[in-house]
Formats: sequence, structure tokens, C-alpha cells
Amino acid sequence: MSKIIDIGKKSIDDYVFDIIVSFQEGIDNVIIKGYGEYISKAVDVYNELYSRLGESIELINIEIGSEKKSGRLKSYIAISIKRKY
Amino acid sequence: MSKIIDIGKKSIDDYVFDIIVSFQEGIDNVIIKGYGEYISKAVDVYNELYSRLGESIELINIEIGSEKKSGRLKSYIAISIKRKY
Repeated sequence: MSKIIDIGKKSIDDYVFDIIVSFQEGIDNVIIKGYGEYISKAVDVYNELYSRLGESIELINIEIGSEKKSGRLKSYIAISIKRKY
Repeated sequence: MSKIIDIGKKSIDDYVFDIIVSFQEGIDNVIIKGYGEYISKAVDVYNELYSRLGESIELINIEIGSEKKSGRLKSYIAISIKRKY
């Protein structure tokens, strides 16, 4: 099971907490997705998560590109991570 | 030959222009590097470059992490691209 965490206005710690709870609920793969100005925060969330969970998560893939969102092209990042058992 | 383009306050187009000039000067690999708030802009620069040069560039690697900069840990992205001939 996988889940997309869409990064927005909540705090970095809130997203980290959401991801840890998702793992506890049995989600194996999480995609941290940030658009536009939230790309930087998506990387912050990954780094904070890594500093808390370390080797028990694995970075699977990083994708960057642009997508239409609300009618205009926006840059995005999608950071795929996996929980290791 | 490779070159690091450190993303800061200049416009997206300025960085795209710097990279195109670097390729014309014989640089093969460029690393677009952005710290903190400039991570989003680094992705914008890549997307803009891709929309201009398309298939003549290749995305080699994307690295994310955190590094000490000015005495404190900062998130970064390093987007490695290669010119194709």
C-alpha cells in the first residue's frame, strides 16, 4: 500500500508525524509531493524524517518535473520512500 | 568537465542562460544546486532548461540531503544534468 503526502501549509513536524503514523498503519510506500514553493519544504520533510528514522527508511526515487495544477504549469518534486522491516 | 550552478537570487532565466553558455563553452555536466528556499527555484531552473533544450539534455541524478552551510544544517537538492551530443 502506498500513500501520497501532499506538502502544504502544515509544519514540517506535522508531515513527519503523518508519515510515521502511516507506516504504523501498514503503509509501505510514501510519496512526499511538493509543488512550487513547497518543493523546498518537501525536502525538509524528507531530511527530518531521515534524521528521526534513519536506516529504517529507504529513498527509492526522486522525480522532478512540471504538471498542470489549477490551470497552470507548476514545478513539483515527488520523493518516494519505503519503510524497511 | 563539470560545473556547479549555485542557485540564489538571480532570475530563473539568468541561470538557464548561464547553463546554456556553459554547455557552449564545452562543459558536459552541470549540477544545479539549491539550498533551503532555493530548492524550489533549482527545480524551476531544471524545468525551464528542459522546456528549452528538451532531449538534448539528460537528467543523470537527483540528490537531496542536508549540509552544514554558514554554521547550520540546510536542506539541499543537487540536480545533475548532462549535455547530449
